[in-house]
Amino acid sequence: MQHTYSYQSLYSFTSSVFTRIGCDEQAAALATKVLLSADMRGIDSHGIARLIGYVRLWEAGRINATPKICITHQTPSTAVVDGGSGLGLVVAPYAMNVAIEKAKIAGTGWVSVKNSNHFGIAGYHAMMALDHDMIGIAMTNASALVAPTFSIERMLGTNPIAVAIPAGNQPSFVADFATTTAANGKLEILQRKNSPTPEGWVQDQVGNSTTDAHALKKQGALLPLGSDREHGSHKGYALGSIVDIFSAVLSGASYGPWAPPFPAYVPMPPDMPGQGLGHFFGAMRIDAFRTSEEFKEHMDNWIARFRTATPAPGHEKVLIPGDPEREMEKIRTIEGIPIVDSVINELKELAEKLEVDFLS
Amino acid sequence: MQHTYSYQSLYSFTSSVFTRIGCDEQAAALATKVLLSADMRGIDSHGIARLIGYVRLWEAGRINATPKICITHQTPSTAVVDGGSGLGLVVAPYAMNVAIEKAKIAGTGWVSVKNSNHFGIAGYHAMMALDHDMIGIAMTNASALVAPTFSIERMLGTNPIAVAIPAGNQPSFVADFATTTAANGKLEILQRKNSPTPEGWVQDQVGNSTTDAHALKKQGALLPLGSDREHGSHKGYALGSIVDIFSAVLSGASYGPWAPPFPAYVPMPPDMPGQGLGHFFGAMRIDAFRTSEEFKEHMDNWIARFRTATPAPGHEKVLIPGDPEREMEKIRTIEGIPIVDSVINELKELAEKLEVDFLS
Repeated sequence: MQHTYSYQSLYSFTSSVFTRIGCDEQAAALATKVLLSADMRGIDSHGIARLIGYVRLWEAGRINATPKICITHQTPSTAVVDGGSGLGLVVAPYAMNVAIEKAKIAGTGWVSVKNSNHFGIAGYHAMMALDHDMIGIAMTNASALVAPTFSIERMLGTNPIAVAIPAGNQPSFVADFATTTAANGKLEILQRKNSPTPEGWVQDQVGNSTTDAHALKKQGALLPLGSDREHGSHKGYALGSIVDIFSAVLSGASYGPWAPPFPAYVPMPPDMPGQGLGHFFGAMRIDAFRTSEEFKEHMDNWIARFRTATPAPGHEKVLIPGDPEREMEKIRTIEGIPIVDSVINELKELAEKLEVDFLS
Repeated sequence: MQHTYSYQSLYSFTSSVFTRIGCDEQAAALATKVLLSADMRGIDSHGIARLIGYVRLWEAGRINATPKICITHQTPSTAVVDGGSGLGLVVAPYAMNVAIEKAKIAGTGWVSVKNSNHFGIAGYHAMMALDHDMIGIAMTNASALVAPTFSIERMLGTNPIAVAIPAGNQPSFVADFATTTAANGKLEILQRKNSPTPEGWVQDQVGNSTTDAHALKKQGALLPLGSDREHGSHKGYALGSIVDIFSAVLSGASYGPWAPPFPAYVPMPPDMPGQGLGHFFGAMRIDAFRTSEEFKEHMDNWIARFRTATPAPGHEKVLIPGDPEREMEKIRTIEGIPIVDSVINELKELAEKLEVDFLS
């Protein structure tokens, strides 16, 4: 059912693929690092399993492997970046670096990006700020799969938000989540197993709650965080909307139901109001607010206190955002990364088609 | 059961109360305007019903009616504001104005506030940015009533987030929501009616799901947005945590379970790690990203498109965040503001005690 590979093995294969489609060495290395950070952190839906999807977008002429990425507008604390239709995996770190450089001088930096593509996991980009003693924020819009509260039409992507906050002796606080009840990747896992979903994840094409994991293929929709009005789905809908507006309306990317779809076989929506996918990044220097030492001391105290919050019966302890992914990264660094057979087979075909050495 | 008053009548009474506890004319006017904006927008839990709560905090020596509000640290795009233990209703607009002034020069402004108190509705402060063609953001921490996922201990407040985004011909996008499944105010309404809550709003003292609206009085807890792990409560918990950290750890306010409680009869937590309640504000100049004209044209398009998203059967239309409150404000401007008898009686006692003229 699955096979385990070392990071080095996946790295070598993935960077060969990116090189083969025309990325220069540096871009291929960066795209590989960002993509595989998902596999390392246990977010398998966003890692090497998506590699073939990126290649298909390139084949369809929707990704430029040698993009001209540039700043089109800026102020001391803001910029708009044009991703030149490049891999989001490369455009996003560029834009996050712009935010970090702005923050060094202005205290904070905020960058909205247009004309980009899927950027991997939001958490990677937010975490870039940590080494600079900054808080990092990353979000992106995505293919429309989510129906707003009271609707049956797919208007928003799963539009994730990531926030990374440095601590002192404690590991960093890293939240990274889709603004839907369940991320699409979790749904895909149930689809592969032909298992039902819990109530409240998806609705069918007429808006009834369903547990059919294949509902999206039948014009159903993912539900915003909160699932239904009574449980706050209007809040999840608002959050997804804010991500869409910050990422795409602010930058000039394509928004809402017009966001370019990730699957290359899905035709581009007609009359797109902007260019490509949009992202939004923020970097806030800790010492633009209080000394880094003081802040970290209190973050350590915050984390330690939450870790010792009384657990509910049947649960061992309270987790801090980022704990499960960090734990997974430790394990996979030692034990390697398991890849399911269906993905291995796809990658094998990809290797043959592109004439690159397959995973060893 | 209730009586309806004009805005003018409530304004006159409320500002007399603030004046009577020592606010100067300008502060009393501002506090009144902020407080009553909740009643006007239909968020009855956060309006005049809370007036007596503020007075009790003043009586307990926890609110200074003539605070020295000042900036204690700043960079071109950031500041920390010390609220001088003042009314949050006055401290928050001061801090939001600092964010707006920063944004005029640096493109964006971000202000973290310590040593404050409850600030009314977050939406009021976020909306201050709209007149300046800016996006406004406001959040605050609050008394601990919410248990993190897997816990039975109250560690976070309902920690709301508000985001106000200007449009052109369309009304503004204004999201303002607690990071819990249900706001405490909604629970209070059910408590008054002795009605049960829907499943997923609260848990009892051992962490079981309950529909008892009085669960909080029995060591129960509100649940983070998402309700349980399967429905994404770890995301609501992360959101509430981010609000807590941005508002209080970044500024030097008291955080997590140490946030000062709003009810004056609840003793202050021992060993508080910071000063008072914390808030966080942001202002982003639209034209720090793209021209205001372009942005507003696309926001109008965004809003118009979402308004016409196919409604689910049984629902008339999709709402844009801010629609219900705007609708309510229109109605109450004409018809006045209904106040329930229990609140009227409390206000009558308050009037007698403070020797100010009661509502006419």
